[in-house]
Amino acid sequence: MSKHVYYFGGKAADGNGKMKELLGGKGANLAEMCLIGIPVPAGFTITTEVCADYYTHGKKIPEAAIPEIDEAVKKVEAEFGKKFGDNNDPLLVSVRSGAALSMPGMMNTILNLGLTDASVEGLVKKTGNARFAYDSYRRLIDMFGSTAMGCEHEEFEHEIHKLKDEKKAKLDTDLSADDLKELVKRYKAVYKKHVGDDFPQDPRKQLFLAINAVFNSWNGNKAIEYRRIERITGLKGTAVNVQAMVFGNMGDNSGTGVAFTRDPNTGENVFYGDYLINAQCEDVVAGIRTPEPIAKLDSEMPKVYKQLMDIREKLEVHYKEMQDIEFTVQDGTLYMLQTRTGKRTGSAAVRIAVEMVKEKKIDEMTAVKRVSPDSLNHLLLPQLDPKAASKPVAQGIAASPGAATGKVILSAEEAVEFHANHPLEPIMLVRKETSPEDVAGMHLAKGILTSTGGKASHAAVVARGWGKPCVVGCEAMKIDEKARTITIAGQVVKAGDFITINGTTGDIMIGKVPTIAPTMTGDFATLMTWADKSRKLKIRTNADTPADAKKAREFGAEGIGLCRTEHMFFGEERIIAMRQMILASDAAGRKAALAKIQPFQKADFVGIFEAMDGYPVTIRLLDPPLHEFLPHDAKGQEEVAKSLGLSPAKVKERVDELHEFNPMMGFRGCRLPIVFPEIGDMQVQAIIEAAIEVKKQGKSVLPEIMIPLVGVVEELVILKKRAIAVAEECFAKAGMKVEYQVGTMIELPRAALTADKIAEEAEFFSFGTNDLTQMTFGFSRDDIKGFMPTYLKDKILPIDPFQTIDFNGVGELMKIGVEKGRASRKAKHSQHLKVGICGEHGGDPDSVVFCHKIGMDYVSCSPFRVPIARLAAAQAALGETVRDK
Amino acid sequence: MSKHVYYFGGKAADGNGKMKELLGGKGANLAEMCLIGIPVPAGFTITTEVCADYYTHGKKIPEAAIPEIDEAVKKVEAEFGKKFGDNNDPLLVSVRSGAALSMPGMMNTILNLGLTDASVEGLVKKTGNARFAYDSYRRLIDMFGSTAMGCEHEEFEHEIHKLKDEKKAKLDTDLSADDLKELVKRYKAVYKKHVGDDFPQDPRKQLFLAINAVFNSWNGNKAIEYRRIERITGLKGTAVNVQAMVFGNMGDNSGTGVAFTRDPNTGENVFYGDYLINAQCEDVVAGIRTPEPIAKLDSEMPKVYKQLMDIREKLEVHYKEMQDIEFTVQDGTLYMLQTRTGKRTGSAAVRIAVEMVKEKKIDEMTAVKRVSPDSLNHLLLPQLDPKAASKPVAQGIAASPGAATGKVILSAEEAVEFHANHPLEPIMLVRKETSPEDVAGMHLAKGILTSTGGKASHAAVVARGWGKPCVVGCEAMKIDEKARTITIAGQVVKAGDFITINGTTGDIMIGKVPTIAPTMTGDFATLMTWADKSRKLKIRTNADTPADAKKAREFGAEGIGLCRTEHMFFGEERIIAMRQMILASDAAGRKAALAKIQPFQKADFVGIFEAMDGYPVTIRLLDPPLHEFLPHDAKGQEEVAKSLGLSPAKVKERVDELHEFNPMMGFRGCRLPIVFPEIGDMQVQAIIEAAIEVKKQGKSVLPEIMIPLVGVVEELVILKKRAIAVAEECFAKAGMKVEYQVGTMIELPRAALTADKIAEEAEFFSFGTNDLTQMTFGFSRDDIKGFMPTYLKDKILPIDPFQTIDFNGVGELMKIGVEKGRASRKAKHSQHLKVGICGEHGGDPDSVVFCHKIGMDYVSCSPFRVPIARLAAAQAALGETVRDK
Repeated sequence: MSKHVYYFGGKAADGNGKMKELLGGKGANLAEMCLIGIPVPAGFTITTEVCADYYTHGKKIPEAAIPEIDEAVKKVEAEFGKKFGDNNDPLLVSVRSGAALSMPGMMNTILNLGLTDASVEGLVKKTGNARFAYDSYRRLIDMFGSTAMGCEHEEFEHEIHKLKDEKKAKLDTDLSADDLKELVKRYKAVYKKHVGDDFPQDPRKQLFLAINAVFNSWNGNKAIEYRRIERITGLKGTAVNVQAMVFGNMGDNSGTGVAFTRDPNTGENVFYGDYLINAQCEDVVAGIRTPEPIAKLDSEMPKVYKQLMDIREKLEVHYKEMQDIEFTVQDGTLYMLQTRTGKRTGSAAVRIAVEMVKEKKIDEMTAVKRVSPDSLNHLLLPQLDPKAASKPVAQGIAASPGAATGKVILSAEEAVEFHANHPLEPIMLVRKETSPEDVAGMHLAKGILTSTGGKASHAAVVARGWGKPCVVGCEAMKIDEKARTITIAGQVVKAGDFITINGTTGDIMIGKVPTIAPTMTGDFATLMTWADKSRKLKIRTNADTPADAKKAREFGAEGIGLCRTEHMFFGEERIIAMRQMILASDAAGRKAALAKIQPFQKADFVGIFEAMDGYPVTIRLLDPPLHEFLPHDAKGQEEVAKSLGLSPAKVKERVDELHEFNPMMGFRGCRLPIVFPEIGDMQVQAIIEAAIEVKKQGKSVLPEIMIPLVGVVEELVILKKRAIAVAEECFAKAGMKVEYQVGTMIELPRAALTADKIAEEAEFFSFGTNDLTQMTFGFSRDDIKGFMPTYLKDKILPIDPFQTIDFNGVGELMKIGVEKGRASRKAKHSQHLKVGICGEHGGDPDSVVFCHKIGMDYVSCSPFRVPIARLAAAQAALGETVRDK
Repeated sequence: MSKHVYYFGGKAADGNGKMKELLGGKGANLAEMCLIGIPVPAGFTITTEVCADYYTHGKKIPEAAIPEIDEAVKKVEAEFGKKFGDNNDPLLVSVRSGAALSMPGMMNTILNLGLTDASVEGLVKKTGNARFAYDSYRRLIDMFGSTAMGCEHEEFEHEIHKLKDEKKAKLDTDLSADDLKELVKRYKAVYKKHVGDDFPQDPRKQLFLAINAVFNSWNGNKAIEYRRIERITGLKGTAVNVQAMVFGNMGDNSGTGVAFTRDPNTGENVFYGDYLINAQCEDVVAGIRTPEPIAKLDSEMPKVYKQLMDIREKLEVHYKEMQDIEFTVQDGTLYMLQTRTGKRTGSAAVRIAVEMVKEKKIDEMTAVKRVSPDSLNHLLLPQLDPKAASKPVAQGIAASPGAATGKVILSAEEAVEFHANHPLEPIMLVRKETSPEDVAGMHLAKGILTSTGGKASHAAVVARGWGKPCVVGCEAMKIDEKARTITIAGQVVKAGDFITINGTTGDIMIGKVPTIAPTMTGDFATLMTWADKSRKLKIRTNADTPADAKKAREFGAEGIGLCRTEHMFFGEERIIAMRQMILASDAAGRKAALAKIQPFQKADFVGIFEAMDGYPVTIRLLDPPLHEFLPHDAKGQEEVAKSLGLSPAKVKERVDELHEFNPMMGFRGCRLPIVFPEIGDMQVQAIIEAAIEVKKQGKSVLPEIMIPLVGVVEELVILKKRAIAVAEECFAKAGMKVEYQVGTMIELPRAALTADKIAEEAEFFSFGTNDLTQMTFGFSRDDIKGFMPTYLKDKILPIDPFQTIDFNGVGELMKIGVEKGRASRKAKHSQHLKVGICGEHGGDPDSVVFCHKIGMDYVSCSPFRVPIARLAAAQAALGETVRDK
């Protein structure tokens, strides 16, 4: 180690912005600002290597570092024109910790270091403000004592409360300068009692004690625990930043402000921020006084304003990013205290990125890398009009994002009826909970609100699939079906009245609140074009209806990766036939019932193929267990019995027979057509006949038949053989052929583990990561409410594995599956195995990056997440790593 | 290919018993018998290579083979002293297929080949039995026509029915020789109609057509399908066996018999079998005439009998195994038609193996390899006394093997009460189904019988765990609780009357049937000693009580691999405290309730540690979800509410809160103590305090604390830390320490996939293959009834994966787990990671072999399967491969 201390100040710095490992994030950034000529209060950084050395030498600052520190202090004094401990105009400094990564649990800042009984008088003289000087001094004793020397902060607090009682002062600010002088005395007594020594009157001693304290905090319990939980390893230690202090509250020639180099809400290229004259930075943030808009500074301090405008441009040119800055003006001199990348809304992010390309500050690829895919969410959903005033009366669980407003309807049947009579009136379906029988009504509603259930409830899952706003588990809401009212937090709302939900936040508002619709135009469309140039992954969508398919095409989907067929069985005529099928006693009875459903299924597929002209459509055969199609209550069973001319006992018997302890792990997926082949045959026939019909229209149709829940290759062997036989029959009847493929979902651990065998039969793989996550972890999404909150809070899981793929466990299985599958398909058939993903993870940016890395061909996600996936895929291809969450 | 045809006959053979690949199993075996001087009717085998050649040359027998076949026919004629097609005394032959593996779907046998219109008259002359001769001829035309030439067997059948109608004959045997002569005429007409040619009158032509037919059958649809399903590949083809025919029905100097070289029931070293004079082999098997015991042959045919006794000894010395033989005597000449390893009961297998060692026929290791571990099952369970007559009135599902007899008791509470008053009376618990509340009564019963449920029902699982006989799902049984009777297949049985079940077969008998108890003595004990010398795997047991632990020690268990603690919470006082714990609103309330259970838990563990003095005991912390401890019906909830002084609504609310859609994948295992740490703390405290107490008695105690359902290493980090803290507290209090380990079950796919991480914390792994199988396949054992029968029938799964480990899927995860875990433990701690298995697979021989192969340290199984595991482990070490099932 040749150099222990890195000075910065004036327009020079020993370090620079790239030296984060050595100087910490903060230190490197301060050096960088100096280097590009931005005025920064002078200071110096003691390196992370000194910290490491401190620990290897029994918690002692290495001898060689001490003269370097003294030297650096002298340079700061020279640059600043003040002396440490000067009795007339003392140099004060701040001392801060700062590792390469931001790390809570390490030492807080010590401000005003350098004040002593003598120099505080100098500060009084210099500022003419005794109250300010003594307040600064007592704060130093508190901060220094409690963060550096182990005193209890509460004991200092106790003294100020006592004094306020004595002086009958209500606020701290009611204390006079003399009161604060008295308080300094008492604080020093507290300090002495705890430390054993007097509060140090030598600023150099203060400084070295503070440096030791920063180093000690690196191995404090909280910091160690934080590093363990966040799995942070390989860091040398923390750096120490010592920096001259400046004050914005030294009169009308001083001031302070915060600003963004562009508007963070809209992205417009205007200087945006607030300032206050004669104030400290905290005053702006705390909102005690109302700050002025930054443009006004031009008239109040024209020189400073011009300087700031130059700095704004300089920072943007240098960092090639919109910046969030803090500044202080002391006696007419401008100092920049901080610059960092500014946070912004999704629409601002898009506009800034695109405009910066036009301004030639960045290139297209940088613009693509710059915008966080998740921030697009904002642009893709209806939002509450920010101009409208709306006050939530209650909050439920935010289950599916976006805002919706509509008339309260209390049942799915009523929704269907209401919609038939008033097709243009928006519906808000309000239920205790929803069930598969409600889907028709749910589909017609603008939004769904339930009083029970969690993020995995039926309402939540269905709504998310459709991108429809939904709030669930609103316990403050009671539904009175007889009175035809709902009561939310004491307020009664009648059926037919308006109500509004915000599925992004869970807020519920009574009455109609205007919403604004998503658009994909201008800058957004431009950014997407750039993204598409870079990405390797294809982006498909999960869509079950022609309407969803069309919407997804507008958002840029390149095919359907998952068309679920189960919803298609709930239409009124279909569900009767479906139940007839389930209740039939033999294959002939089942076939007769299925024959009634077939024309409907075919029509469904015709619509979807038409919408997807030229793009592939993956259709998953029926997946859920049969009992989901039968009612579980006695009344419902009686109705079914009546409608089918059976005895209620017979219906109940079949329901009992089909009952499952763990339906997730039961008689579903490909197990259904293995036992009841006629179900699969009917579906394949509908798919192929629809494909023939659409091809006859002159359209291009690419059906992919997907067999779900395969765990054993023999399942696929049998079902593929049947599918081919059915298709050949259709071709013979029609006198023409259609290209099609037969493949499988990989959603069981065993399927991934034996992917080599399965790929000998499957023409494509689609990873069903929802089920794969459930089976790999051994927990069902519906049953995690008891422990998942604890797991996420205690970081047992770093992130909800249903949101982002669990790379180490589920991801490992996916890697095995892709590698074994590809190798085997190549060896056996000399073919590239097409591999995709169709779980909800397909719309999660980090998961998309993972899918890119393991070499998938496509991801498939909800229509309204298609642009997010396009952007994430582009970033993956441009070499972005998985972002921290 | 230098040689196409292998002759056998006299005491010579071109081939031998090792040439199965070339000659097929049958051909090799016939050659072997000749070589060791056993009289076998002469014949020859055309090799499997000829079959391959047949297919590569457009279905033509290779030219070079033809003279070899003709030559071999001549040798048979010479050996046998008869000529093919001789009009006075024709040589007749059989033609059979025979591949290296037995394969259904290939050609059936053609007998009597060589008969023609002319030679049949010779046969009449030679045998003096025209009826026999014409019957033989018409059978040849039928067999040859239908199996070799593609005629319909039904058309031949039609002719014989017509003729019987005409002749008013009831049985085939009512037809006279003339009738059969007429039938031959009609059969030949059928033949000609179908084939286009006359039935060939040249025996050589018959022979070559038959050989072609055998080769063609190799690629028949049925044979191809069979090879696909059984995954048979790499065979060259089928061989063809042509062998001279002999007849045992040629007068009183002829006869036929079947025998075993030792008694297959007891294993006693006596000649055992039956014979019939002047009969064909089928007559003995079909039981039309009552055969004589083999010993009587000594007086009827003393020369033949002596010859047979010599052959018996020769075969045993040669094959070193008990043989099952068939013989025919034609005109005083003995011919052996078959010898193969004889099937035997488990006890016979043990006795034969041990006695053959004493007779120096085999060595100890061979004896160990010889006995099928599964056959020991028979010896380890109470059986129905074979001397007792008993007729089943109904059959249920055989859920847990062994026989039991007892008095019908209709509820678990009554069983407890009855047992208190009549401790020596055997109880048969008869229920619709059982639930966890019933375990006390179940434990007292000799056997359990239910009218509903399958092999995975509560009754079945609990009973199997205890090795208690159990029959479930007996649908023919109705229980009338009010009348206090049960009705089985129409017969009424009163509560208190005797009933008997056979859990091995599912049979139910009314009344008392004597049973015989298992013993492990004599030959059985000897065999076990030999097995223990060879094996590498340790054998532990799954035991939850001191009684089970003691029983397992008697069977040779070397520790407990799984002590489940959940049953321990169902005792009367405990369940109340357990419910109090679950219903408590805070940690303090839970702790207070748990404190009441702690002394009971401690006492449980003391008993188990005492029984296992010196052997390790792995205790699994509480695993099932909490709702299993609460009643789900309103009445039960009211009772609980009353007993705990709570409102029924509060109890119902908690039950609803804890409800799970998929309990198997819910809030259970280590997820419980993560959220409610006090539960785990109480259990660890009970374990450590019990260990201290037993150590103080001077015994050796080795507790292993096993944390279930770990999927993420952080779970283990947290729980291990707590366990160590609790243990240290106990040690401090007691003033002494006990060695203990903390490890985990590997029962989730994610645990296996991340075993490297988990092994950094775990001191041992125990594979929970029940849950691992469920999660890997994505089906729950409780919910497979709808499809598993189809899966096994259609060979989609070759075997029930809950019985034998699924080597390719679940086994792959186990391999990954062992390899990653061992490597990581070694790298991080320089320690060997102890790895075992504690699922029910631990008692399955094929699974034990697999565990040996992947390098496990031990397997753990039910007490009564310990000897089976010991034997299987020895066989694994001796290099037995996994047997076919």
